[in-house]
Amino acid sequence: MENQTETFEKIKIDALEEILGKKFPVLDDGFVRVVDYMGGDEAIVQAARVSYGKGTKKVSEDRGLIRYLLRNFHTTPFEMSEIKLHVRVPMDAWRQWIRHRTANVNEYSTRYSIAIDASQKTDAGNWRIQAVDNKQGSEGFFDNAIGSKLTEREEELQQFAREIYQERLQLGVAREQARKDLPLSTYTEAYWKIDLHNLLNFLALRMDTHAQFEIRSYANVIGNEIVSRWCPIAWQAFKDYRMNAMSFSSLELQILKQLVTGNKHVALKLAEDFGWLNKINDKLTKNRERIELEEKLTELGMEKPW
Amino acid sequence: MENQTETFEKIKIDALEEILGKKFPVLDDGFVRVVDYMGGDEAIVQAARVSYGKGTKKVSEDRGLIRYLLRNFHTTPFEMSEIKLHVRVPMDAWRQWIRHRTANVNEYSTRYSIAIDASQKTDAGNWRIQAVDNKQGSEGFFDNAIGSKLTEREEELQQFAREIYQERLQLGVAREQARKDLPLSTYTEAYWKIDLHNLLNFLALRMDTHAQFEIRSYANVIGNEIVSRWCPIAWQAFKDYRMNAMSFSSLELQILKQLVTGNKHVALKLAEDFGWLNKINDKLTKNRERIELEEKLTELGMEKPW
Amino acid sequence: MENQTETFEKIKIDALEEILGKKFPVLDDGFVRVVDYMGGDEAIVQAARVSYGKGTKKVSEDRGLIRYLLRNFHTTPFEMSEIKLHVRVPMDAWRQWIRHRTANVNEYSTRYSIAIDASQKTDAGNWRIQAVDNKQGSEGFFDNAIGSKLTEREEELQQFAREIYQERLQLGVAREQARKDLPLSTYTEAYWKIDLHNLLNFLALRMDTHAQFEIRSYANVIGNEIVSRWCPIAWQAFKDYRMNAMSFSSLELQILKQLVTGNKHVALKLAEDFGWLNKINDKLTKNRERIELEEKLTELGMEKPW
Amino acid sequence: MENQTETFEKIKIDALEEILGKKFPVLDDGFVRVVDYMGGDEAIVQAARVSYGKGTKKVSEDRGLIRYLLRNFHTTPFEMSEIKLHVRVPMDAWRQWIRHRTANVNEYSTRYSIAIDASQKTDAGNWRIQAVDNKQGSEGFFDNAIGSKLTEREEELQQFAREIYQERLQLGVAREQARKDLPLSTYTEAYWKIDLHNLLNFLALRMDTHAQFEIRSYANVIGNEIVSRWCPIAWQAFKDYRMNAMSFSSLELQILKQLVTGNKHVALKLAEDFGWLNKINDKLTKNRERIELEEKLTELGMEKPW
Repeated sequence: MENQTETFEKIKIDALEEILGKKFPVLDDGFVRVVDYMGGDEAIVQAARVSYGKGTKKVSEDRGLIRYLLRNFHTTPFEMSEIKLHVRVPMDAWRQWIRHRTANVNEYSTRYSIAIDASQKTDAGNWRIQAVDNKQGSEGFFDNAIGSKLTEREEELQQFAREIYQERLQLGVAREQARKDLPLSTYTEAYWKIDLHNLLNFLALRMDTHAQFEIRSYANVIGNEIVSRWCPIAWQAFKDYRMNAMSFSSLELQILKQLVTGNKHVALKLAEDFGWLNKINDKLTKNRERIELEEKLTELGMEKPW
Repeated sequence: MENQTETFEKIKIDALEEILGKKFPVLDDGFVRVVDYMGGDEAIVQAARVSYGKGTKKVSEDRGLIRYLLRNFHTTPFEMSEIKLHVRVPMDAWRQWIRHRTANVNEYSTRYSIAIDASQKTDAGNWRIQAVDNKQGSEGFFDNAIGSKLTEREEELQQFAREIYQERLQLGVAREQARKDLPLSTYTEAYWKIDLHNLLNFLALRMDTHAQFEIRSYANVIGNEIVSRWCPIAWQAFKDYRMNAMSFSSLELQILKQLVTGNKHVALKLAEDFGWLNKINDKLTKNRERIELEEKLTELGMEKPW
Repeated sequence: MENQTETFEKIKIDALEEILGKKFPVLDDGFVRVVDYMGGDEAIVQAARVSYGKGTKKVSEDRGLIRYLLRNFHTTPFEMSEIKLHVRVPMDAWRQWIRHRTANVNEYSTRYSIAIDASQKTDAGNWRIQAVDNKQGSEGFFDNAIGSKLTEREEELQQFAREIYQERLQLGVAREQARKDLPLSTYTEAYWKIDLHNLLNFLALRMDTHAQFEIRSYANVIGNEIVSRWCPIAWQAFKDYRMNAMSFSSLELQILKQLVTGNKHVALKLAEDFGWLNKINDKLTKNRERIELEEKLTELGMEKPW
Repeated sequence: MENQTETFEKIKIDALEEILGKKFPVLDDGFVRVVDYMGGDEAIVQAARVSYGKGTKKVSEDRGLIRYLLRNFHTTPFEMSEIKLHVRVPMDAWRQWIRHRTANVNEYSTRYSIAIDASQKTDAGNWRIQAVDNKQGSEGFFDNAIGSKLTEREEELQQFAREIYQERLQLGVAREQARKDLPLSTYTEAYWKIDLHNLLNFLALRMDTHAQFEIRSYANVIGNEIVSRWCPIAWQAFKDYRMNAMSFSSLELQILKQLVTGNKHVALKLAEDFGWLNKINDKLTKNRERIELEEKLTELGMEKPW
């Protein structure tokens, strides 16, 4: 706990300083930029060393320590770094974003000021088809003919909505009421401040392929352009241990053990006992837990035993 | 801490049980209803008594204790009661609501399901005029002629927005994308679970006359119809010590002291020193701190000394 | 969102009602008991169904849904159930317990009342030897000869500390100051209220074999005796997907892929590239990431390739 | 929202930079020092301006805006500034400190490392007498004769506790168990990171005269030495509107109105109706709400009417 373990000049990350205030464009008219920050990889180590005290030999170098902390859920040192972003994002995506509660937020007020005159627009080639299997997903895009029509109609609606909004303001309707029918595609802006631990939680959920395209676009920029510069070691550890890790449930593990030791029939028996191999008309019925294991086996280059 | 200080049947509040599941209508198509709850006035006392331990005489009866806790910011016993509401609310108001972070939320997903086919509509007589002094407020209503026109146009927009939404769904656009231009007036539903302490914080802000009409309407119902039945003693204390209390800043107190002891000229001198009596062309310039004191003096039936 | 998807009688869990107020003993003089609760497995489903809306077919039965939610980090429905415990625990363990911030707490006040006259005592057979490899762990127990001596000395210290405390109180020293030298082994009591999601986070960390024996003893009782009765389906899912799951980092996965497809030498090459096979004097140096993979391979019944 | 409203060099507060790392001593062997910070008064304004948007004239200068935000509970801009402290504090005071949940903490681990070899000691002149009226307070000090004896006994206990601790460590008892009987007076250290809004909440409670001397000593240093340098405008506003403000409940207001307008008998009648003037043997019984009003009247230089 003596001075040598602490840095008393504010930690300064050159790679991040270089992009302070720089707008990274997202979607057609959004952006993310860094307003301020505190800490970085060095602050994670600094905080962890407080816990370990002066009696401890500095065995592990910083990289090893950060990776150890991350994979063992020692999350508090990651809370010791903090970042403040300025974001511009459609209200529809913001509705998802704001669900992450452990963050500080100041949003542009359409009660106090006139709403930002910009709505997210969709190019003809970017209209997504409803996924069949995944009720909350999309798969593939419409062809240009349909896409163009959709884009045209989107434009009509956004223009009409803006016209009504202007009409209300000109008549003197209170801003807080005039805004009531703005489309969810309207852009809003906000300052968003969060610690690294909670930011990684946000990124784990929102960079995931199941996250909606729009918020995923923001998450990717925040992760790949900002966190990667700010805390490169923690960022790599996060990718290794969380984003690109694979988890096996206790049931999956039982089957995997049998497969890797060559007991395919025992594996089959287990899957049956788990109720994963029910059939109708000799065809396996849909079973999510079985399908997920199949995907993992494929990823490992293994054959499914059924 | 012995058994006698605790209740081991779940606390049951008859007045609240009677309205479990009952929809209290709010706005044109919204509602609030109680799904479940834990605790009540009795649980506040129960929790406080844990802190005080068995060594303590039960001097104060429950009402006195609850009032004491509330006015002295002993907030933790109020966290020991919890309520779960089912609400139906326009997305615009929900955007404000969700800013209260210490709560649990499950919202209807327009990514997974088709958006609720209802938008908040405004009667001809309910269009509010932008306030002049308060940039984020309204004052008065439009006459019926203008109001009718506004309502007509609102209807046009809402119908067009719904038409576009349906069009997209019929073409097979992914629900997560089809929803992007829904108006903020679209109703959403959610389960909202919160402890009494944080609920009172919500109510203090949202029942305030400066809160926007729409969310204030919900707050009033939650406070007056639900909390009043659930925790009547805490509710009364909250009104006495928070909603209807008046606070004087240290500057205001200095002036007030002089006024109540008859030293009007000293009071004047203080206000001058505070920079509250600057004039342009012999007219007092606008000074918010002075104006707020003037309002408090009026409330007390006292003359302002300048 | 119609009535049929909601239960408007408070959810009542018979298996939990039976043990309301029952003290489960922990350590020599501690306990845990349930004071009140809200929800259960049924409330998880109820909350998830709100998100999915009325347009959704009820395809999956409750068990499948709860397991799906848990393994895919859809955590909000688990926040909709809440439990309130009364615990008696040594202050030393309480210091760890209280670090879980998303909970409501009312603790017995030794400022207001006389400290509970009980300290955690250690039997001769329960003195633990410092682990060599794990600086924050223990391994094995002292023999009875040493243990008895340690227990005797513990008793001396605890008696002396209590004597001093009493002495101060009798002289009239303020309770808030008299308590200053109480041993950390002194028991305290508290009401602790938490939602199921955050309780599972607590249990994941504190039931872990690396958690300290004392707090682990409490976590085991809360998990195995209480949560198992309260939410049996969620409890089983938690054990399958979290407690007894195994996660492979992206680096480990790369090696595992090669091993299961028989490419041992590629696996070896990868491990070398990762820096996991450094040697000093022909002996592998200690490398935590390698050791952890070795343990996982052993668990799967596979040989390590180096 | 254009660039002109934002600062893209990290905000740097010279007055705070000067004391980075400087240890402010507290109690006999504790301290507080600043490790890092983000923002300051300027960041409060910056965040508020995001909410108000570019459409807004910059009417109010910063000081007026900050004061306005603080007295009207616009708390979110205050969350945009963050500070990280390194503190050394007796465990007994830390037990109270840690109850403030909205903060990030890394504490020195006595599980991993040997406990800090320092306990809070009490000078002969600093032993406090139990208050009679306030069960959780103290009033006055013991004379030197008694004080010296108490200090001597404190020393005996602390030495014996340290002896036992050393004995255990030398025998090889696990650190996690050896620490179990350390006195609460043992010093611990921690990094504590918190935003300005939550820090002010902490200070409001812990600088209060009812807070225990020990934690109040820390709060005073944090407020008067650190926040005063970091955010001088917010700090002054906090003192004016919160620390030194006076609040009247709705009941008190009713009486005050009558008093300032000369209707003493109506005031009396009201107090009677409130149940504040009950008598036993012609003497007013103890009534906390009445006593609190009496204190406020005295503060204002007014006579109580009963």
